[in-house]
Amino acid sequence: MGLLPPPVERLAEEFARFPGIGSKTAQRLAFHAVRLSAAHGLALSGAVADVVHEVASCPRCFFLSLRGELCAICGQPGRDQALICVVEDPGDVLAIERSGEYRGLYHVLGSALSPLDGVGPGEIHADELLHRAQEGGVQEVILATDSDIEGEATASYLHNRLESSGVRVTRLAHGLPVGGELAYADERTVARAFSGRQQF
Amino acid sequence: MGLLPPPVERLAEEFARFPGIGSKTAQRLAFHAVRLSAAHGLALSGAVADVVHEVASCPRCFFLSLRGELCAICGQPGRDQALICVVEDPGDVLAIERSGEYRGLYHVLGSALSPLDGVGPGEIHADELLHRAQEGGVQEVILATDSDIEGEATASYLHNRLESSGVRVTRLAHGLPVGGELAYADERTVARAFSGRQQF
Repeated sequence: MGLLPPPVERLAEEFARFPGIGSKTAQRLAFHAVRLSAAHGLALSGAVADVVHEVASCPRCFFLSLRGELCAICGQPGRDQALICVVEDPGDVLAIERSGEYRGLYHVLGSALSPLDGVGPGEIHADELLHRAQEGGVQEVILATDSDIEGEATASYLHNRLESSGVRVTRLAHGLPVGGELAYADERTVARAFSGRQQF
Repeated sequence: MGLLPPPVERLAEEFARFPGIGSKTAQRLAFHAVRLSAAHGLALSGAVADVVHEVASCPRCFFLSLRGELCAICGQPGRDQALICVVEDPGDVLAIERSGEYRGLYHVLGSALSPLDGVGPGEIHADELLHRAQEGGVQEVILATDSDIEGEATASYLHNRLESSGVRVTRLAHGLPVGGELAYADERTVARAFSGRQQF
């Protein structure tokens, strides 16, 4: 329509490339950028440039790291090198770390398998996972992909690939959320809670 | 926690300043920025900087414009200078322009009145609206603020301020959405459709 100043149109287009950001939301974000103070606006611009220049995937586990360095977890002394927890996204790593329950290493797939979107085994670093599992010293690979269809398919695929490695392969438990009420749980969660019930 | 590379933390903090973006979403956006190609990342960074440097509010109507210039609508020949449509956001201007129904000018408040958030009459350019209405040549001010509590309160406030100006003040019609089904309309919309019913 050409009613917006070209820089605003361009910024909205860039925001619209982000996953989960539709064109309306992208436009709203661009409108907001106009109202940022010059200092905040330039801080945002600089932060984006810094991420592009300075941040990459950890060469070992594909979590976020400074370019050319191991990530904060791979580089942390005292992590259990015999455990690898496989997750889809960096945000999953943060959620698991917040629980304080896990002290091993990670393998960040970046996505679940999704052939229709062009995400095959090569895109999720499956070969690298197999390589790490076979290197020796690794005793268990914990599959912590999401419990949706793509996440389950990805877990199955990785389980098959890892079977011959002799490493123990486990899957995170699914069931009722702690503190949640049974009456509000969805039927698939209740079903998984039953099929996975344990001796009291 | 310090698990994320500092540039990613900083970018997430900048995104979290945006309205409607919570800290989880801000983090997800920052993670995505890591996966942008260098070209797209720098395009985003540059687009933000361009917006900061080149874009401002139209000195007349406060829609978005190139710095120091009238906006595309105020500068468009053939707009009816006797009509001013008052809206909350730049996105409202685009929605009205898409309808093709209106050929007058706008006055973009930037927000509804919201004293608890520090948005008073000075923040919504109310004085400037009054000044425009009194300049002569303006026959009608159409209040098109949202129909939520803040939008209605803002419309009432502006109506009071404009009363002495002698300009006709109208409010956009509310009622059933065109093409929508009565059975799915919320009760307040149905009530407004009744109270605003017109001779067939």
